[in-house]
Amino acid sequence: MFDETDPTNPPPVSGAWFEGDDPADRRFSQFTGGRPFVLESGESLELPDLAFETWGELNEDASNAVLVCHALTGDSHAASHPGGHTPEAAHGTSPDGWWERVVGPGKTIDTNKYYAVCANVLGGCQGSTGPASVDPGAGMLYGPTFPQVSIRDQVRAQAKLADQLGIQTWVSVVGGSMGGMQALEWAVTFPDRVRSVAALASTACSTAQQIAWSQAGRMAIMADSHWNAGWYYGGGPGHGPHRGLATARVVAMIHYRSDTEFNRRFGRTSSHGQPAAEHGAEFDIERYLAYQGAKFVRRFDANSYIMLNHMMDLHDLGRGRGGIGPALSRVRCPLFTASVSTDFLYPEYQQRELVEGFEAAGQWTTHVMIDADTGHDGFLTHGEQVEPQLRSFLDKIASEPQI
Amino acid sequence: MFDETDPTNPPPVSGAWFEGDDPADRRFSQFTGGRPFVLESGESLELPDLAFETWGELNEDASNAVLVCHALTGDSHAASHPGGHTPEAAHGTSPDGWWERVVGPGKTIDTNKYYAVCANVLGGCQGSTGPASVDPGAGMLYGPTFPQVSIRDQVRAQAKLADQLGIQTWVSVVGGSMGGMQALEWAVTFPDRVRSVAALASTACSTAQQIAWSQAGRMAIMADSHWNAGWYYGGGPGHGPHRGLATARVVAMIHYRSDTEFNRRFGRTSSHGQPAAEHGAEFDIERYLAYQGAKFVRRFDANSYIMLNHMMDLHDLGRGRGGIGPALSRVRCPLFTASVSTDFLYPEYQQRELVEGFEAAGQWTTHVMIDADTGHDGFLTHGEQVEPQLRSFLDKIASEPQI
Repeated sequence: MFDETDPTNPPPVSGAWFEGDDPADRRFSQFTGGRPFVLESGESLELPDLAFETWGELNEDASNAVLVCHALTGDSHAASHPGGHTPEAAHGTSPDGWWERVVGPGKTIDTNKYYAVCANVLGGCQGSTGPASVDPGAGMLYGPTFPQVSIRDQVRAQAKLADQLGIQTWVSVVGGSMGGMQALEWAVTFPDRVRSVAALASTACSTAQQIAWSQAGRMAIMADSHWNAGWYYGGGPGHGPHRGLATARVVAMIHYRSDTEFNRRFGRTSSHGQPAAEHGAEFDIERYLAYQGAKFVRRFDANSYIMLNHMMDLHDLGRGRGGIGPALSRVRCPLFTASVSTDFLYPEYQQRELVEGFEAAGQWTTHVMIDADTGHDGFLTHGEQVEPQLRSFLDKIASEPQI
Repeated sequence: MFDETDPTNPPPVSGAWFEGDDPADRRFSQFTGGRPFVLESGESLELPDLAFETWGELNEDASNAVLVCHALTGDSHAASHPGGHTPEAAHGTSPDGWWERVVGPGKTIDTNKYYAVCANVLGGCQGSTGPASVDPGAGMLYGPTFPQVSIRDQVRAQAKLADQLGIQTWVSVVGGSMGGMQALEWAVTFPDRVRSVAALASTACSTAQQIAWSQAGRMAIMADSHWNAGWYYGGGPGHGPHRGLATARVVAMIHYRSDTEFNRRFGRTSSHGQPAAEHGAEFDIERYLAYQGAKFVRRFDANSYIMLNHMMDLHDLGRGRGGIGPALSRVRCPLFTASVSTDFLYPEYQQRELVEGFEAAGQWTTHVMIDADTGHDGFLTHGEQVEPQLRSFLDKIASEPQI
């Protein structure tokens, strides 16, 4: 029997106690074909799994595949599956995925036409091998010993998954924020395997401020009385560094959104009436954020959060390639990108830099400015301002003869 | 002998182990004349002290006094004292105060002309009675039982200090951020006792985003393994919720500054060369912030931090006065205010609201836009863009006949 206080005797399923880790529509790829996966850092993972989902049908010449890459806290469940399972456990009472508006029949990524694939990132906590998985070499959970994965490692893992699925070239690799980092790395690492990339609210490299926010989250987690240097799994639910992780989530929710939105939605209201001048007074914004924090810790692993945030910090298309300019000169495909008017985490100049780089490489680009008060999250909350253009972009790419 | 593990047997000096709590130029006012000070919340403080410092000489008719109000983490030591002590312990190797550029002979607040006064806020940890002080009623430290103080309470305490000093009317009450909140409350609470107010990078009420940041800091502190529900004093230095408080400081440093500044000063540099793709890689921005966090915990008390942040959350000129408009209609003096172009914590619209309110009350105003990439802190880092105008403003006020 599983002894939940003993990390050397772990539960059999990866990250078993994170809500949403078992949607029945998920498939698994031991993408390395039984060999260790050597990471950019030189460390390696033995027999790692990628959890992935697909929508639509791959056509005969495998020329209709679109790879969807999720953002920091996403997973493989980009959308529900028509006629498929209803993973209530994964997503509350709804089978909807995190990009339900975009992926599906007749939608932006029209699965009557395209074969869409989305994999949970390596090091995540929703099915792919991550810190809450068993290290086969050690016979215990990886925990904080899980090696640092890079965006480039993710892209190489996804390329191996593509090989297994028989996909040589993607119509597009599409993602926002951290998902966009992966799309951009595809364009630079495998210029011959992508006919286009779409990177929404993303960047060529993480900036000092993005790294700083990431650090603040890490510090909050590591100060938690239940952090225990990353060995917190034995205690089971309720025993991880939940207060620290919730704090990290609250910090993130604030810089993902905007002052304008918070004024509009919350202002200084309190459902308890006029806020009293006491320690315990609670504004609605506080209650909202506390709820978001509490919800998050049920579905995310702190070790994954730390490793993936640091992965984003390390993101730099120019690393080892002579800088961002020379890196972008490698691209051989068009770029779709979008900014949000109130995004102070990934401001517009970062997407402009991508446009300039792709155009300098002789590629055409489409840039959409989303006018929304929801900050960085605007590419999700105000998708209607970008999805029609993204759909046209994809259809234009798909209709062009493949070289 | 003091048993440092026993909170009922506290050290004799308020907040004794916070660096900088004993500058020799500081004076103390038991401003209530031996009576309890009843707070806006209805709770009261027995025999509270205000620590304050003064510069210059009060003239015969007490018509040259300027009150300087410090921001969240400031103290009474706004400037050094010519010929005075050199409190190295308080401010490293420099006797300089936090507004050294502004307060002194020949400076913006010219102490050859004005009598400047600055008091540590009630509930602070640099000499005024606060959570790290002894509660005379209980015979032990206040700790987390210290009552919630409001900005209005601060202003009423400062008014009693003014009474003691023989000052009926201030030439101006001047401050930035939380100091500006106090200046504004002076104009509304005691319109007959201020001839002007100067509130830099401040606001008529805290916004949802400001409250949200404040909450994130509180959460970080309270998740710390050494928080112990606020009873952490017994352990002495190194035993408080230092990691949580450092995290709160890091979160604050990021939203006090800006993306542009961090790009300029740090970018993606690492003094260890090209950042490696490993957990331990440290960017210069991370080292800088970690240093700021570590420095802060030596001089600030977590209980003070929490209480004062919540005091700022509760700041609302309009509370109990029918809203901000009616509150501002009470003012009877000119306003000086300043914004910083990259301040996303207290954006310009908040200072514009003050200008409109004062002008609607028939008062003249001066608004200065500071063009700086240092965010909210721009009123300190780029003071040269606002100090000449502030000096002119003060001199104009002082030269006008007192009504």
